[in-house]
Amino acid sequence: MARWEPGARERLVLAAVDLFAEHGYDATTVAQIADRAGVTKSTFFRYFPDKRELLVAGQETLGRLLVEGITEAPEDAAPLAAIAAGLERAASAMGPMNRELGPRLKAAVSASAELQERDALKSVGLATAMTDALLARGVPDPLAHLAAELGVLAFKRGYAAWMDLEHDEAGLAPHALAALEELRAASASLG
Amino acid sequence: MARWEPGARERLVLAAVDLFAEHGYDATTVAQIADRAGVTKSTFFRYFPDKRELLVAGQETLGRLLVEGITEAPEDAAPLAAIAAGLERAASAMGPMNRELGPRLKAAVSASAELQERDALKSVGLATAMTDALLARGVPDPLAHLAAELGVLAFKRGYAAWMDLEHDEAGLAPHALAALEELRAASASLG
Repeated sequence: MARWEPGARERLVLAAVDLFAEHGYDATTVAQIADRAGVTKSTFFRYFPDKRELLVAGQETLGRLLVEGITEAPEDAAPLAAIAAGLERAASAMGPMNRELGPRLKAAVSASAELQERDALKSVGLATAMTDALLARGVPDPLAHLAAELGVLAFKRGYAAWMDLEHDEAGLAPHALAALEELRAASASLG
Repeated sequence: MARWEPGARERLVLAAVDLFAEHGYDATTVAQIADRAGVTKSTFFRYFPDKRELLVAGQETLGRLLVEGITEAPEDAAPLAAIAAGLERAASAMGPMNRELGPRLKAAVSASAELQERDALKSVGLATAMTDALLARGVPDPLAHLAAELGVLAFKRGYAAWMDLEHDEAGLAPHALAALEELRAASASLG
């Protein structure tokens, strides 16, 4: 099987994240990102309007896929079954690029207070999107909030498990679903 | 009963939050905050080293109290009983100043992308502190993470209910504990 080769868009994202880790988000310029990715500045601007958008784009896609999966789950699905459908939809769209990106994004976030704040806001945004999708299905509050928080935790834990694998076999989805099942089982022991 | 009168420290926090709402966090200066609070700049610096610290101080106290309550809960307390002890400890330290601050801080946060990011990071920080306190009690992972998320949700929901009251009778604690109980009950319906 051929090794995965990133295209220009992927190279730009990876280069940016590495530069953020090395020099901080603020100090990194579009010119540096393009240079590291081996493309011109105008190629950068063909993919992203600015440096900020480069981080936001992936997050918006993720939120949209989670919501789509929740919305399209069978009408009689329990809240966590709808969350599982959202996780499956989003996780299935994640490929080698996302696995490659994970540890490098983690390094960038640890190195930057600004990226930590953005990363936190991203989690809150995903929880809100999933809560709203469940409320729209008629799941009552606060059950919708609670199920959405389990979904965010499951996504993060599944992603971490996937990143830690030596070799990827089956993609992110089984890890995210296993994490959700683990959280569901734990909820019986809250007291 | 005498109406509550804020001291210099409280007036500084309230003035700052209102100015953040009106002009944004970045555009607000220490001189403006002191002026609005009716004190001198040197009085400001007697209480806070800078503008940033004014927001961080309350958050650190909150995290410390939550952790203390969790840590000192009876050894055989279930995870949610330990969380309840943390909520009770933290909520009991909140008085009229916190109730006054709530809606004004909410306005400031809605008006500022920067404060939204900080607010999100604050939630993540509280969840991490509570998770670590539970892990230190021997609560296994991911149960500790899950219980901590319920604690953060309960604190936020209890605080919102408390802010919405026309007249405060019993403080924040009963609202936070009622929200936790509501979440615990909801966890049985996750599916």
